[in-house]
Order: sequence, then C-alpha cells, then structure tokens
Amino acid sequence: MIAETKSALQDVVASLIAEISKTASERDKLGGTAKKERDLIRKSGLLRLASPKAYGGEKADWSTILHITREIAKVDSSVAHLFGYHFLCLASVELYGTAEQVSHFTKETAENDNFWGNAFNPLDIHVKAKKTANGWLVQGKKSFCSGATDSDRLLISAQKEDGSGVVIAVIPSIREGVIIGNDWDSFGQRQTDSGSVEFHNVEVKHSEVLEAFQINDDNVFATVRTHIAQSILIHVLLGTAEGAFDVAKEYTKTQTRPWVTSNVDTAAEDPYHVYNYGELFVKLKAADALTKVSNEVLDKTWALKHEVTFEQRGECSIAVATTKVQVVQTALDVTSRIFQVMGARSTSAQYNFDRYWRNVRTHTLHDPIDYKIRDIGQYTLNNIYPEISAYS
Amino acid sequence: MIAETKSALQDVVASLIAEISKTASERDKLGGTAKKERDLIRKSGLLRLASPKAYGGEKADWSTILHITREIAKVDSSVAHLFGYHFLCLASVELYGTAEQVSHFTKETAENDNFWGNAFNPLDIHVKAKKTANGWLVQGKKSFCSGATDSDRLLISAQKEDGSGVVIAVIPSIREGVIIGNDWDSFGQRQTDSGSVEFHNVEVKHSEVLEAFQINDDNVFATVRTHIAQSILIHVLLGTAEGAFDVAKEYTKTQTRPWVTSNVDTAAEDPYHVYNYGELFVKLKAADALTKVSNEVLDKTWALKHEVTFEQRGECSIAVATTKVQVVQTALDVTSRIFQVMGARSTSAQYNFDRYWRNVRTHTLHDPIDYKIRDIGQYTLNNIYPEISAYS
Amino acid sequence: MIAETKSALQDVVASLIAEISKTASERDKLGGTAKKERDLIRKSGLLRLASPKAYGGEKADWSTILHITREIAKVDSSVAHLFGYHFLCLASVELYGTAEQVSHFTKETAENDNFWGNAFNPLDIHVKAKKTANGWLVQGKKSFCSGATDSDRLLISAQKEDGSGVVIAVIPSIREGVIIGNDWDSFGQRQTDSGSVEFHNVEVKHSEVLEAFQINDDNVFATVRTHIAQSILIHVLLGTAEGAFDVAKEYTKTQTRPWVTSNVDTAAEDPYHVYNYGELFVKLKAADALTKVSNEVLDKTWALKHEVTFEQRGECSIAVATTKVQVVQTALDVTSRIFQVMGARSTSAQYNFDRYWRNVRTHTLHDPIDYKIRDIGQYTLNNIYPEISAYS
Amino acid sequence: MIAETKSALQDVVASLIAEISKTASERDKLGGTAKKERDLIRKSGLLRLASPKAYGGEKADWSTILHITREIAKVDSSVAHLFGYHFLCLASVELYGTAEQVSHFTKETAENDNFWGNAFNPLDIHVKAKKTANGWLVQGKKSFCSGATDSDRLLISAQKEDGSGVVIAVIPSIREGVIIGNDWDSFGQRQTDSGSVEFHNVEVKHSEVLEAFQINDDNVFATVRTHIAQSILIHVLLGTAEGAFDVAKEYTKTQTRPWVTSNVDTAAEDPYHVYNYGELFVKLKAADALTKVSNEVLDKTWALKHEVTFEQRGECSIAVATTKVQVVQTALDVTSRIFQVMGARSTSAQYNFDRYWRNVRTHTLHDPIDYKIRDIGQYTLNNIYPEISAYS
Repeated sequence: MIAETKSALQDVVASLIAEISKTASERDKLGGTAKKERDLIRKSGLLRLASPKAYGGEKADWSTILHITREIAKVDSSVAHLFGYHFLCLASVELYGTAEQVSHFTKETAENDNFWGNAFNPLDIHVKAKKTANGWLVQGKKSFCSGATDSDRLLISAQKEDGSGVVIAVIPSIREGVIIGNDWDSFGQRQTDSGSVEFHNVEVKHSEVLEAFQINDDNVFATVRTHIAQSILIHVLLGTAEGAFDVAKEYTKTQTRPWVTSNVDTAAEDPYHVYNYGELFVKLKAADALTKVSNEVLDKTWALKHEVTFEQRGECSIAVATTKVQVVQTALDVTSRIFQVMGARSTSAQYNFDRYWRNVRTHTLHDPIDYKIRDIGQYTLNNIYPEISAYS
Repeated sequence: MIAETKSALQDVVASLIAEISKTASERDKLGGTAKKERDLIRKSGLLRLASPKAYGGEKADWSTILHITREIAKVDSSVAHLFGYHFLCLASVELYGTAEQVSHFTKETAENDNFWGNAFNPLDIHVKAKKTANGWLVQGKKSFCSGATDSDRLLISAQKEDGSGVVIAVIPSIREGVIIGNDWDSFGQRQTDSGSVEFHNVEVKHSEVLEAFQINDDNVFATVRTHIAQSILIHVLLGTAEGAFDVAKEYTKTQTRPWVTSNVDTAAEDPYHVYNYGELFVKLKAADALTKVSNEVLDKTWALKHEVTFEQRGECSIAVATTKVQVVQTALDVTSRIFQVMGARSTSAQYNFDRYWRNVRTHTLHDPIDYKIRDIGQYTLNNIYPEISAYS
Repeated sequence: MIAETKSALQDVVASLIAEISKTASERDKLGGTAKKERDLIRKSGLLRLASPKAYGGEKADWSTILHITREIAKVDSSVAHLFGYHFLCLASVELYGTAEQVSHFTKETAENDNFWGNAFNPLDIHVKAKKTANGWLVQGKKSFCSGATDSDRLLISAQKEDGSGVVIAVIPSIREGVIIGNDWDSFGQRQTDSGSVEFHNVEVKHSEVLEAFQINDDNVFATVRTHIAQSILIHVLLGTAEGAFDVAKEYTKTQTRPWVTSNVDTAAEDPYHVYNYGELFVKLKAADALTKVSNEVLDKTWALKHEVTFEQRGECSIAVATTKVQVVQTALDVTSRIFQVMGARSTSAQYNFDRYWRNVRTHTLHDPIDYKIRDIGQYTLNNIYPEISAYS
Repeated sequence: MIAETKSALQDVVASLIAEISKTASERDKLGGTAKKERDLIRKSGLLRLASPKAYGGEKADWSTILHITREIAKVDSSVAHLFGYHFLCLASVELYGTAEQVSHFTKETAENDNFWGNAFNPLDIHVKAKKTANGWLVQGKKSFCSGATDSDRLLISAQKEDGSGVVIAVIPSIREGVIIGNDWDSFGQRQTDSGSVEFHNVEVKHSEVLEAFQINDDNVFATVRTHIAQSILIHVLLGTAEGAFDVAKEYTKTQTRPWVTSNVDTAAEDPYHVYNYGELFVKLKAADALTKVSNEVLDKTWALKHEVTFEQRGECSIAVATTKVQVVQTALDVTSRIFQVMGARSTSAQYNFDRYWRNVRTHTLHDPIDYKIRDIGQYTLNNIYPEISAYS
C-alpha cells in the first residue's frame, strides 16, 4: 500500500504536486529531463498505484490513475504525461503478455518503484527485429519515445524482418546498445523526453517478448490499449486547461487593470471578462462531465479483459473519442483566450503563460482530431465502429 | 402505482409517445390545444408520477420526470413542455404551501388525474389581488400562461394591491371569472397554449393561497423552483434537438442525394456530412453528460427541502445554468445545421422540419442565455452566486 | 431609359421597394405568387436594366443589378430572387445563343417588359427532348423552377433523347403543353414559385434553341452562368440578413425590455446586446466588402465574353465562392441570433420575424456550402480550379 | 525619391524582405534588437516613404505604407511593427506640431534616414514633466516603448507636473539622461524592443515640443493618430497570419504524411485538410477585403487634416475597428489551426512555427478586442461614435 487511507493517499498526491509545481515553469523553459521530479514520483510510491495490494499497490482503476494524471497536469503537463504513460506501458504487459509476465513485471516494478518509458510508436516502422536463438536482435531508430530518458524499463516495438508482424517487448532501459537520444525539441511538452531511441544490435530475450495476444487473432482486448492511451492524453490536456484557467482567474483578479473605456473599477467586474470566464467554464464542465462518462466505460471495458467484444470495444472507442473532441477544442480555446482576459502584460516571460498553449497545441497533435470527428460521424450516421488502429 | 414494474412503466411512456408522435408535425402546423394528447396523458396515469405510491403515484425523482419530458420532446416539444410544467406547478405547492395543502392537492390530482397549468409568469405584474373577508379578489391579465388551456388546476400569481408582495394560489381552472385567452401566436412551441389568462374578479379562498413560504424569509427552498423550471426547459430543448438529429440521420441515409462533385456514391458516405454529424454528436453528448450532473444536483437539492442553504441553492443554480448554456447552444446549432446534411428538398412543407428550429428558437428565449453565462462567470471568477430570481 | 438620371433611377427602385415592403410579411405567410408585385416590377421598367439604352434599358453591369437585388431582398427575399433570376435567364441567351437571338430577345423583352422565369434546373434530368422536323418535342417534369409562374418567357433545359446532351431554349410561358405546377411548398422563399413545370409534348422551334455555345467546346464563357447565379444567391442572402439586422435593431430599441438582473435601464444599453450587435455588424461588413471584390471580378469576367480563359473563369469562381461562404455563414447567424437580442415576445406571429431565418435556411441549400469550402481549399492548397459545373 | 519607378520601388521592398526573411526565425528566438535589419531598412530609403519627393521621399499614402508593413510582416512581424511605428511617430509631428516642425523633422529624417521610436504609451502616466525656462525637464519611466532601442529620434509623452495635461515632444534618442531599458521580455513580438525607457532629468527644448494641437480643443485631427496606430497593428497581424498560412501550405504539401485511416495518398488530398485551408482562406480574404475599405477611409480622413469632423473621425474609427475585429479573430485562428493541417512533427523547434501564434497572441493584446466589438455595437445599435481615446 502506498498509504493507509484514501485521505492519506490524497496527501501523498497533493504533496507531490506541490513540489513539482514549484519549478514547473522554470523546467518548461529548460526542457530536458525532470530528473528530480521523476525521482520524487518514484519515492512517492505512486508508480505502484495500479499494482495489487500484495505488491504494495492500490489496485487503482483507470479512473483513479487518470484523475491523478489530470491533477498533476494542472501544474505540469509534461510530468503528467510521463506519469500517465508509465501506467500505459505497464498495462501493455497485461494486454500483450502472459499471466506470468504480468506477475513478474508487476512485482519487479513495485519492489523497485520502476519508472516505465516507451519506444513503441506504432507509426514509426524504422526499427527491425531479427530472430536469434535466444530471442531477437533489434536494430534501428524510433521516434516520439516519451519517457524513455531516465526510465527503468522500456516498452519497445520492432518490425519483424520477415514482414510477419511486430515484436513487442519489455527490456531494462540500460540494456546494452540502447541509446536514448535526448533530442526532443518540440515547442511544447518540453520535459516529456519524447525524442528518439536508437537500438544498436540490442538483444531481446524470449522472456521479455510480449506475444500472448497473438495466440488468438480475434481477441480484441489488446487493442483496448488505444483507449487507455487516448484517455491519458485527454486527462493531460484537460488538466492543463484547468491549470491555465485557474492561473488566469488569479491574474485577472490581482493584476489586470480595468480597461480605460470600460467604466468599471476592477477588471474582475468587467462584463466581457466575466462573460469570457463563463463561456470557458461551461466548456471545461462539459469536458469534465464527458470524462466521467468515458472513464466509466473504460473501466468497464478493461474489466472485461479477454471477454471484450468488438462491439464493446467500439462503444468504448466512441465514448473516449467523444470526450477527446470536447477536451481538445476546449483546451485550445482556454489556453489561447485566457490572454484576452489577462491583458498585454500577461505575455511577460516572467509568467511563462504561453507554455499552456504550447503544451496543449503540441499534445493535441498526437493524432488528428478531424479523424476522431469523422469516426464519431461514421458511428452515429452509419453505425460503423472506428477502424481498429493505434489511434482509434 | 402507474405500472407494476419499471419496464411496464417504460411501456406506458413508450406507447404514449408513439401515439403523440403520429400527429406531432400536423398539430404543430395547426397550433392550438393538443386536447386529444393531453387526455392521453391523463389516461396514462403519468400525471401522478411524482405522487406517493399511496396516491397511485411512483414517487419519481426529478431525474425521472425530466427524462420522460425529454423523451416526449424528441417527438413533440410542445406536449413535453406542458408535461414538464404540470410537475413544476404541482411542486409549487410543496415549495410555497403547507403540508396540508401538499397532501390535499397531491391526493386530489392523483385521484382525478388532474392536469395543471399556470398563470404565474413572475415578470408580468399586471394581475392585482385585493384582500377580502374570505381570501382575495383577483383582477387583470397575465401573459405566457403555458398549459392554462384545458387545465384542471391553475397555479396563479398576483400582486397584492398594497404593494406588499405576491399572492400565489391554486384554483380550479373553471373558476368563475377566469378567461383563458387561446391567443398564443409564437412561431414556435405552438401547442403550448402559452397565451394570456384574464381574471375578472376571480375569488381565491384562503385555503387556496400558498403562503407558508412567507413565514420565514431566509428560507430559500421556495426559490429552488427556478432550478426545476430551468431543468424542464433544458430537457425539452435537448429532447427536441435529439429528435431533430435522429430524423435528419434517417433522411440523409434514405433521401439525400450525393452531391454532384463529391465523388461518393451515397450521401451517407460524404466526408463532410459524416463530419457534421460527428460534430453535432459530440455537442449532444456533452449536453447529455451535463444533464446527468445537474439532475443529480437538483435531486439532492430538492431532497434537502427547507434545510437547503443559500450556498447549496447557488451550487444547484450554477450546475443547472451550465447545462443550460451547453443545451441552448447545441439545440440551436443542431436544428439549423441538419438542413446542411439533408439538402434543399428537406425544406418541403411535407416534412415540416423547420419546426425543430422554430421550437428551439422560441423556447430558448424564455430567459436570456447571455445572463446565464454572465452568472456563471461571476461564480467562477468572483465566487458570487447568481442573484435569486425567477430565472436564476 | 428607365430614368433620366442616376438619382431618378434610385427613386424608381426606392419607390418599388417601398411598395413591395408593405405586404412582404403578409405575402410570405400566404406563399403563392406575388402577382401584384411582379406587375409593379414590370411597370417600373427595371426588367430592362441590363438592356442597351437603344431598347430603353440602362446597360447596367452585374454590380448594379446585384445591388438592386440586394436592396429588394432587404424587404422581400422572394421577390428579390425572382428579380435576380430574370436577369440570369436573359443573360443565358448571351451565354448560349447567337447574336441574333440576343438581339431578338433583348428587344422583345424591353418592348413588353417581359418577366423571365426558368425551368432549367440542371440537376433534374427528367425532362426529355425528341428531335422533330421543326425543332424539338419536349416531355417531362422539371423541379425547382423559380419564377416560372406568371412569367412571360421561360428558359428551359431538356435531355436529348439520344443522350448526346442538353437542349436549352427560350419559349413563351404560355406555349401549349406547358403546365406550371404552383406546387412550391418549402418553408422558405415561399413566394418564389420554385415548384415544378410539366411539359406535355411541348413544341420548341429551332429559332428558340440556344446552341451557339456548342459550336466550340473549349469556349468556357457559357459556364460563367454559374457565377452569375451564385452572385444572385449571394445578394439575396446578404440583403435578407441586412434587412433582418435592421428590423432587429429597431425592435431592440423600441420593444425589448431590459433584463431583470441586467442593471441597465434600457435593452439598448445592455452590454451583451450591444456586443452581439457589434459581432454581427462585423460579419455583415466582411460580407459586404467581399461582394465588392467578387462583383468586380464578375463584371470583368463577363466583359471578356468568349475571350475568357479557363483560368480567368476559375479565379472568378473562387472570388464568388469565397464571398458566398462568408455570406451564408453570416446570414444564418444573423437571422437566428437576432432573437437573442430581441427577446421572447419577438417570436409573436404578428412580426413574422422567423421568415428571415426560413428564407435564408432554404436559400442557402441551393448547393452545399461545404463543397464551396472544399473547392476553395483545393484552390489555395493545390492550385486546382473548381470543376466546371452548374454550381462551381 | 527612393526609386525611379513603381516597379523599382517594389524591387527595393522585395529585396529588403528577402534579406530580413533569412534570419527571421533565428532572430525571433534570440529576441533583442534587429540591428542589422534596422540598418538595412535605413539603407533602403524606405523610411522616407511618406516624405515629399522634394526630400527624397515618395509621398506615399497610408494604404501604401500599410501594404509594405504587411508584406514585411509576412516574414517578420517584429520588424514590420518597428517599420510601421516609424511612420506613426513621424506622422505625430503633423498631428500635434506646427508646419515648421513638420518641415524640420521631415527634412532631417529624410536626409539622415532617421529611424523613429517611441516612449509615448498614453496608458502609462509615470513620466512627469516640469516646466523650465527653456522648456521641460522630464523624469520617470515609461513602458511599452516599441522601437526605442537603436532609434534616432524618440517621440515621448509626459504628464505635466501641475496636472494640466501632457507634454508631447520629439528628442534625439541619444539625449543625455535617456536610458533605454532593453528589457522587453514578452513571449511574442520579441524583436520589437517594446520595453521601458527611463528619463533622468532629460531636457526638452521648446522647439521640440509638439503643442500646436492644443490651440484648438475641438480640433479632432490629432486624435486620428489612433486610427493610424490601429491600422498598423492590423497590417502587422494580417501579414503574420498570411505568412503563417503560406508556410503551412508548403509544409502540408511537402512534409505532412497522410493519416493512417484517411484512405488518401497524400496529405494535400486529405478532405479535412483541404476543408480547413478553405475555411482559413475565406477568413483571410474577408480580412483583406475589409482592409481595402478601412485603408481607403483612413486615407480620406487623413487627407481632410484639420477639417476633419467628429463624425468623419467616428466613421473612420468604426471602419478601422471593424477590420481589426476580423483580422484579430482570423490571425488567432490561422496561427493556431495551421498545426492541425501540418501534424505533430511541425512542432519541432527547427521550424519555430509557434512564433506566428506567439507574435499574434501578444500583438492582439495591445488593446482589448472586446471593446472594439462593444464600440461597434454602440455605433450600429445606438448611433454612438467610439469615445475618443488612444485606442478608439
């Protein structure tokens, strides 16, 4: 157990967030790895959240993990991303691996407070795997490997040389031949280390390969990974927008000056500022209400494990996609419009308020929102579930 | 009891709706009173929904009543409005009256399947009440009296002649001197009979006056009426939009022709039609998710009865207002945009599809949405609850 | 000449509009044919606007004709539509016919103040033409024939029986076998008589067939018809929106009551009403500024006659499409949002204010706006001109 | 003269822009002063654009100056801002000074290719002026002094110590006691040097004070400065948006990969990308069309000089404000939405594409757009011209 009571667990989360918060703006400017904060997370025990109590965990459901991810995102969307993706990587063992592997990796992770990262990007097919006597030899360069730097375990994917599919495996991040690029250079989510990982003849053992899912091809449980990944993105984005909204309110009330022709005494009384805050609040609340719906569906779908049907997976896909559309549109609007209610001086570098938009703009490009809307349209108009993919 | 089981109750509702649906478009064109449908409602027993089981009711909470209101609105937003307002009028006895009055009117209503209407519009102060030995003498003309025509009981309000406040009372609709105008002429919600009621020296007895609420002025329970009224509006609007959306999908799939330069074989495959449906679906789902939130808050607030505090009332007000903003914006968009995905021929009078927009446009003007957004902004920015009024 | 001076011509237009305006709302409710108003137009001489001065006309360019169409649309969008389409039909002789035909029909029209209507809808291919010794025999039913009723001349199109193309011709509307349906039943543009025309073995003479354009297939001048038609739609829509905007302002200032919690003395001072008017004004002005651009391009393109190249036609197509997108979006927003700044009582049938939205909603469906946006996107992104069609 | 012919002048502009373009992204990252580019502008002769031909200028009207400002903004919005503000500062002599001062400063500027900057911000009243025998002694610190660094002449304003108004003057930037802060630190428009200027007992001579405008208080010509300033902002913003749009198109066509479930071969064929480009194109064209309108009004209003009436000034104010609303909304949308059609990899620091949004977001906060919309609403609804201010 991480904490004796629910309230004690909340305290653990709160104190972690308080600490991360202190340097979040500064670290955003620096980019690179949030080493100290990653260690704080390790020490908090929260990496064990999803693990059984027997292993010192809380057996938390996705709703809980997503909620904490969103809380972290309110102050630091990069760290929130890494935090959420840790659980996605861990869950991948359950999605793709055997019961033994689940048991092994869960235990190991819990005992050592291992932080998981990924080199998994399914869109990037430049990493190849060659069969050997003991497993596979992996070669090539993978992009968008969020959380690889300073990770303890790495979820990887590589194309089988014979074109017969993909090898998915978990290896120690320090495995010989693994070179983590530290070359993430986007203008947003700057501390997610989402750069490249190079594999130079990296050995992967049989026991590290997750291939249980391949035994039965019409088993769609493994493809629920998509919905977990999307739900993490959703909560990172929504948390970021909520963090920006709160910071803006404080600024408007304490720093913004009433406009010269507004005939009000304080900016907080300005009828148009009030109106803008009202509009953004409604959008945020709609997003929040939709997360309740889709998180519940996700938890139920996950609980079905290998019993989940194509239809149930499809319903989950639509619930998550619907939430995502609202969250993406809301987060982009909030993080840009807050400046309108804060005024010109809020653009000063001392505040670094543009990081909210930069983070949201970058993170919302993970996969195109137009295709989420298309998929939803196909569902409602033509009763067609989204094509199974790493993004839908 | 109206039905033995939940599922039997659903059947009652479904068969009522099926019947109403048949003539909804035709009756919209005619305007006037939906006499036959009102009688069907009486006969269904559903007017007893909120009543205790002892009186043959279901003791349904607001969520249930609102849900059925919304279901009716999918096929007939006028009848849905009358249905919802019946419960608002009945609830007013509990809000303003004594326990004895509640008991009396509930029993009487249940026994006779009485349909309640109103002549209550708080913005209209042209009706005056003069004190007499036995009660009051009421004189004047009231506007926007939805559901007065063909009602059995009438909730009325009148300004006390001495300016000391308002008389609220329940009278039989056939009371001498009551002349129901049948003069509702708006372009929307045409069968709500929301016209005028004239009072020509109408006698109101002491026992008919609801004045318990005046005993204690800081008792805010009576003002929760606003949130019930707003929630009914919300569900009428959302149901209308959902009904329009469903009808449009059917039309697009069966009637709309693919556009000449679209390079698709059927309109249902058109990428832009699909996209429009996807966008509208997200808005409807966001509205739906918010109703879940605000209905729950309303039920809890109602359950508090006279214990409810100003703060709790304020939270309820914000929850309901937030839902309303999303619903209003969504309903206006859906009922206008559906034509874009149905095409020119869908404007034919045979379909009467413009009634959705006409109904929504009329119903959304009950009170200005801009002031809902203002109130929400004041709440989130300045921690100010909405001013207590008949609309907030 | 219609009038001695420009200002006298303006007086002719102004007095015509004043007359039409008086009954516009009433006639919208009635639907059917605006016989009296059509005769007023005949009598005004304005049907000769485009004709040479030699024939009693003004040789007005398209900008002028479009401007007057828009002025009429401010008070009556149905009559404006008929007015604009008269010139489209007449221009078709120049687009498709010989110089002799132009001369003949122009003269005839000017001498008799003929009103032209159409049975031309290119999307409807149910009318067939069979070759005879003296011309063609036409059979079938055509839909969307705006202005056919009470017309003097009819522009018709029919599919050649052998599948080799289309016969375009001008015939007297009273030609034997022509049966005008008077069956237009859309909820908008109710006095445009855009119903069906049936042809029962209607004889069309050689001299009535417009086929000069077929002599040279890569002559694109004939296809400029599209841009004229679209420009007429644009001006009808923009005028309607402007008319609605003006009426709403007057209502807000004289009828709308300040909202109960607004803390302002008059509705016209309400900060949110003022803001809404400001937003709509900007949209209308943007639409107006774009019409200046596209009208100029249209006049230049028209002036090129048979010299016009595919590229010049394409540029004109894009200019007109761009204006149309802005106008369509603006007109839909204005005619729906005005109610928000007028309030609930503005929905009364006595005002018939919903006709603005009904007219705009109907008229904007002539061809899908999404494909205008698609065409513009193809142009700006991929340097592709819109496919030549009756709509692009 | 700057160039012999119009086309030669265009070449001067084009070659200047080509040079500035090369380093624009790099310099945006560095912030600070664009010294080399400012010198290129000096050398180009373009600082003389507005000057009479006698002084080596082109007597260019505002439309021309604004057009060139917009062209520069397509590649570098900071330099464009400095360029435009040079002419605003110079024009201030004509607005506030005597004919002698106009003649003197124009000549001097033309002869030396002086670059003007400002320390004028009317909202900041922390700089005080004390009367002396020879003029004024100026003391204090001024914020938002765009273009002060590396300027040759400085337009300043200071509050008269006795509270009787403002001293406006032109001084050499190297005047003793003037300390330019180089402390501009906003996240956008990073090379505009819009930081502070400190005045330590700075002497201002009588001849340097621009006070002609004070002679006659109902002379509103001086207040036309607002419209010039706003028009410069408009063209900087529109140019930035156009630059971003062009860069995005190129990227989509050459770098963006088609989405995995899109069923298209190239990103440029993606129906949703095409649609987004179409929508943004319409907004940009509407903005462009409105600049044509407001620039023409500005040139006419400027030409009226001291004859301009309050009403004419008001009309100009509304024309400019209307354009600004469209431009602000468009520029914010374009610079954020382009990422949606470029994809995740376009966030890489190598492109620095976020600078477009950062520049627009910062520059649009100069004064609140909500009050532009309010002012326009007051004009159209209540026939009230905007209150005369430094921003309206």
